[in-house]
Amino acid sequence: MTMKLNCDLGEGYGSWKMGLDSLAMPHIDQANIACGFHAGDPQWMLKTLALAATHGVEVGAHPGYPDLVGFGRRSMKCSADEVHGLMLYQMSALDGMARSHGLEMTYVKPHGALYNDMMANSELRGQIMQAVAKFYRPIRLVLQATPEASEHRKEAAQYGIEVAFEAFADRCYADDGKLLARSKEGAVHTKDKMLAQVLQLVEKGTITTVSGHELTLDVDTLCVHGDNEAGVRSIEAIREMLS
Amino acid sequence: MTMKLNCDLGEGYGSWKMGLDSLAMPHIDQANIACGFHAGDPQWMLKTLALAATHGVEVGAHPGYPDLVGFGRRSMKCSADEVHGLMLYQMSALDGMARSHGLEMTYVKPHGALYNDMMANSELRGQIMQAVAKFYRPIRLVLQATPEASEHRKEAAQYGIEVAFEAFADRCYADDGKLLARSKEGAVHTKDKMLAQVLQLVEKGTITTVSGHELTLDVDTLCVHGDNEAGVRSIEAIREMLS
Amino acid sequence: MTMKLNCDLGEGYGSWKMGLDSLAMPHIDQANIACGFHAGDPQWMLKTLALAATHGVEVGAHPGYPDLVGFGRRSMKCSADEVHGLMLYQMSALDGMARSHGLEMTYVKPHGALYNDMMANSELRGQIMQAVAKFYRPIRLVLQATPEASEHRKEAAQYGIEVAFEAFADRCYADDGKLLARSKEGAVHTKDKMLAQVLQLVEKGTITTVSGHELTLDVDTLCVHGDNEAGVRSIEAIREMLS
Amino acid sequence: MTMKLNCDLGEGYGSWKMGLDSLAMPHIDQANIACGFHAGDPQWMLKTLALAATHGVEVGAHPGYPDLVGFGRRSMKCSADEVHGLMLYQMSALDGMARSHGLEMTYVKPHGALYNDMMANSELRGQIMQAVAKFYRPIRLVLQATPEASEHRKEAAQYGIEVAFEAFADRCYADDGKLLARSKEGAVHTKDKMLAQVLQLVEKGTITTVSGHELTLDVDTLCVHGDNEAGVRSIEAIREMLS
Repeated sequence: MTMKLNCDLGEGYGSWKMGLDSLAMPHIDQANIACGFHAGDPQWMLKTLALAATHGVEVGAHPGYPDLVGFGRRSMKCSADEVHGLMLYQMSALDGMARSHGLEMTYVKPHGALYNDMMANSELRGQIMQAVAKFYRPIRLVLQATPEASEHRKEAAQYGIEVAFEAFADRCYADDGKLLARSKEGAVHTKDKMLAQVLQLVEKGTITTVSGHELTLDVDTLCVHGDNEAGVRSIEAIREMLS
Repeated sequence: MTMKLNCDLGEGYGSWKMGLDSLAMPHIDQANIACGFHAGDPQWMLKTLALAATHGVEVGAHPGYPDLVGFGRRSMKCSADEVHGLMLYQMSALDGMARSHGLEMTYVKPHGALYNDMMANSELRGQIMQAVAKFYRPIRLVLQATPEASEHRKEAAQYGIEVAFEAFADRCYADDGKLLARSKEGAVHTKDKMLAQVLQLVEKGTITTVSGHELTLDVDTLCVHGDNEAGVRSIEAIREMLS
Repeated sequence: MTMKLNCDLGEGYGSWKMGLDSLAMPHIDQANIACGFHAGDPQWMLKTLALAATHGVEVGAHPGYPDLVGFGRRSMKCSADEVHGLMLYQMSALDGMARSHGLEMTYVKPHGALYNDMMANSELRGQIMQAVAKFYRPIRLVLQATPEASEHRKEAAQYGIEVAFEAFADRCYADDGKLLARSKEGAVHTKDKMLAQVLQLVEKGTITTVSGHELTLDVDTLCVHGDNEAGVRSIEAIREMLS
Repeated sequence: MTMKLNCDLGEGYGSWKMGLDSLAMPHIDQANIACGFHAGDPQWMLKTLALAATHGVEVGAHPGYPDLVGFGRRSMKCSADEVHGLMLYQMSALDGMARSHGLEMTYVKPHGALYNDMMANSELRGQIMQAVAKFYRPIRLVLQATPEASEHRKEAAQYGIEVAFEAFADRCYADDGKLLARSKEGAVHTKDKMLAQVLQLVEKGTITTVSGHELTLDVDTLCVHGDNEAGVRSIEAIREMLS
């Protein structure tokens, strides 16, 4: 069973802490590191890189909209040029810092509203893919695994970039393969349901939607959460089950 | 006569413009590009890189203190870790953007108060040199040419980095080899005096201080200003004289 | 003829200047002053208040989305609480500074994308009206004069606030009473057409749309632009015609 | 015994929390509320104002240097104009928000490096006093109680402002009446020593310095800390002892 676990880390800012990075890092495979626009000043980036190095965790850029006070969770109407710039700047910042400390950034996964907008809006997705393609060396772009994955793979091929797909361990899926809105009942799984969903994904490559349909999802990595102790315990439980 | 001309460019921010970049760029050798902390968002960085590419101008990082509203002109007491982080982040951001657009960043020159503090404070200078040494590939650090240049060269050698020294074309020097404070009479040269100072530097490797002493300065590059039309005309006059 | 002229001023930030405030101020009645979120740090606010005092110009708050690099021109999906907070914070900041320097802030006019979103989205408009109603003393809210003005007036009455309506001197109107998109031909009037539009507004209370229809607009104040010299000359021409 | 307790609150920013405000608020008399420059966006300000209202706690502005990433803990060389602007802007922002929600801001206490610099630098202290004097209505300025208090009171009288002096409950004092540097042994009191220091201050108006000297301090309010659970327990213990 080769499913990887990825987690958003380094989401502090200056004196402000967020997430239990040191507890989550030992159990994950890939650390999505905030790059300064929605979280993650240089100090937090360096600290998180060092922690990833200690635990042999792969590092990726986690760029967001330029919105500290909103934590990158608010959609912003950016021009194509602005998307190009914000992607390239944040990937570059983490890349150089990682290399300078002996690590290699291997992928990029947009954050928050930028991620959601990328999945919902093909024009923005194209702009993001173009920025990744323009980056001076090949890195993977992480997208959400949905029934449109093969289409997204084709789009990526046109830009000459590699993609990876992630699923969410603890979220219930709607029948269209998207996440059930958090406002809906049952949107976030109990621990048992989460473990069952992960097992099914790993063994059969499918998930069962809210209404009981079985859906095939092509998944490379599972997004887990290190925000709080419950999240960390879930990561540990998934890791234990997988190994 | 091989004196190079360097100029601070890309100092706009979002909708705000500063400097006559497109007029200055054709006449200079090295563009010091703002990296986002005191000026220069991703759009301005990309625009400035493209302009440098058009004119075959060498590009360097121009990192500053994190102080947009103060334009990096206010000293900030940063810890060693903070200096390391702000240097590495800004160098990395420009480096990756330059490489992604076919250019190579070859040097770094701190901006404003960070530059002044670096020249005045050996501890901070050491922190900056260490950050440059830690960068994943060798780039030069630009310092001000002063009578302490040979000492600065030794410091740099201890960190294993290469340095370059710059003089100011239009500024009058005090007897200690530092710049005469702008508040003093005669601190900024007339055009004729400026050209004479440049010529003397290029031909004899010396400058004449405010009180008439001749001082040897080891200079690799001249700092010129593209802020306004008078500055651009000065650049043109220096360029014409040198060629 | 009692039409007032309002103009966005104080839109610099730190070392960055924008607009010809000192040339525009003598000819206008109302200065919309940026409050720090999209432009206008404390220094610019104080400078602009002083200039307004010199010329006896009424001052109003010009709050925007928290987006310096985007100059408040990008829509941001803010929650009702966030709208309440950003409105109240910016109005309060200018209000206290104005009072401390002997002036009284009498109105508020949202900026850029916040203004456009307010006109397009009744939910956001209600949140803005509620914030104005909550402000510790009554100030007017400036809206765009459209055929929906009477409806907007009713909304405002429900919140117990006073509104004022502005028209644009130099913009061509579509048949629905909205501004013709800038991308369309003829969207911005020539000087003659602008003066004619202003005269018609003042004398008849109507404008003629792009296709020749005459539309009644209930207008209290005209928005003019001090961004560049052409804009300032237009202000002077309108002022001369009106007096 | 009429000693008041003041506490820095509202020091979160966007999604980032700091301090146990809801646990500390019930036990204090005065809430120093961050105003957006080093911490405290509009949402946190409103939340903190509401909490203060619930517990009948007096509110004051807690302005800092414009340095979010450094939490206002780094000295910045600001001009007199800049100090005037940053004080007036932040006081005004909180004042208007407080009034709009039925509260009255009665005092201002600078934060972090701005506070330390104010105590160490008479020129800066004068600039801060001038800004408070210029504020549109009288509010008190909180200074640290030191042996120079009577001098500071005279300075304040020259600006026509009222001052209040605070002591620190849990910090050991040096013989010169300043705080013992945190790096020194015994700089932060144990709970017992803290309570003894508070009692001595309240009963005798003195503190005992690190070397055993008794020093008279003219104290109006005690600064307590709600950063963590130990801090909150200290507040509770002080409150219990005082009542």
